[in-house]
Amino acid sequence: MNYCSACGEKVSLVVPEGDNRQRFVCGSCEMIHYENPKIVTGCIAEWQDKILLCKRAIEPRHGLWTLPAGFMENAETNLQGAARETAEEANAKVDNMKLFCVFSIAHINQVYTMYRGDLVEGLASPGSESLEVELVTEEEVPWQNIAFQVISETLKLYYQDKKKDNFVMHYGDIIKQSDDSYIVNYF
Amino acid sequence: MNYCSACGEKVSLVVPEGDNRQRFVCGSCEMIHYENPKIVTGCIAEWQDKILLCKRAIEPRHGLWTLPAGFMENAETNLQGAARETAEEANAKVDNMKLFCVFSIAHINQVYTMYRGDLVEGLASPGSESLEVELVTEEEVPWQNIAFQVISETLKLYYQDKKKDNFVMHYGDIIKQSDDSYIVNYF
Repeated sequence: MNYCSACGEKVSLVVPEGDNRQRFVCGSCEMIHYENPKIVTGCIAEWQDKILLCKRAIEPRHGLWTLPAGFMENAETNLQGAARETAEEANAKVDNMKLFCVFSIAHINQVYTMYRGDLVEGLASPGSESLEVELVTEEEVPWQNIAFQVISETLKLYYQDKKKDNFVMHYGDIIKQSDDSYIVNYF
Repeated sequence: MNYCSACGEKVSLVVPEGDNRQRFVCGSCEMIHYENPKIVTGCIAEWQDKILLCKRAIEPRHGLWTLPAGFMENAETNLQGAARETAEEANAKVDNMKLFCVFSIAHINQVYTMYRGDLVEGLASPGSESLEVELVTEEEVPWQNIAFQVISETLKLYYQDKKKDNFVMHYGDIIKQSDDSYIVNYF
């Protein structure tokens, strides 16, 4: 950030009075520009013993597999956002959506809210951000070609709960280690 | 938003190519400025049969009661943010924190993540954003003077689960009606 979005003058990084963090503050109109984490919201769409995966047509991780998910927009709920992303990426409709897991990923300033629901009529086809969509069983999940760690963790939790026939909500922190591996702490 | 934070030139509201929503786009460097919901993260701090409430020393809702909570910062987890807010607003430390509820509030572009944990040694005192802090039993909760609907809903869920001696995670959408009343849908 270089300029104030309100008045167009230069901003600088300072700790505002009464605050304890550096913020971008306008030298002219004194507006404080806060930067906060973003929410990614998405969905495990279930059909019989299968779930819906999408092959990414966009960067990052072009060509790898993911669950339909994307940045939550203003004026929508997490659930509405998850449904919208599933419609956009896989032309699919999902019923009976329940929040399944929340992951906090501090090193990229993101929080994921992932839902679980019924894929209506088992119907899906690639949206503009997907190369392919596929309904897969657990054995068919391409574990080595999943786009993001948070998606692998979501799928692992899903199959754990499915085996117990008891789905509950989960919360975890995904932490990137100095050697680029990840650890996940559940609370 | 009037100016591009990257280059300082004028922005205008347009639907970018491949998008379906209006965004602020810079007429000069073409940067797209996305605006997304913010996360508020906070805590029910428990001590014996009481919980910690704070009387707000800041607007909005100056003088009304709330749970310690505030905007999540970059580079922290939801849980760390809830602990930080509890420290800042009530000089209190909380152990064994568990995610208790997530509320989506589309009309103000906010998502709340509220935790539950043990108030260490029952110790708390007002931080700079609090006029008072108090440990209250269920009977002592000032229901008519709670600052925000989402805090009332969190407290209601808390006492419902406490009576059953079975705390589970909850997700709900808080929807403001045209007559300014609220409805809450749980999923």
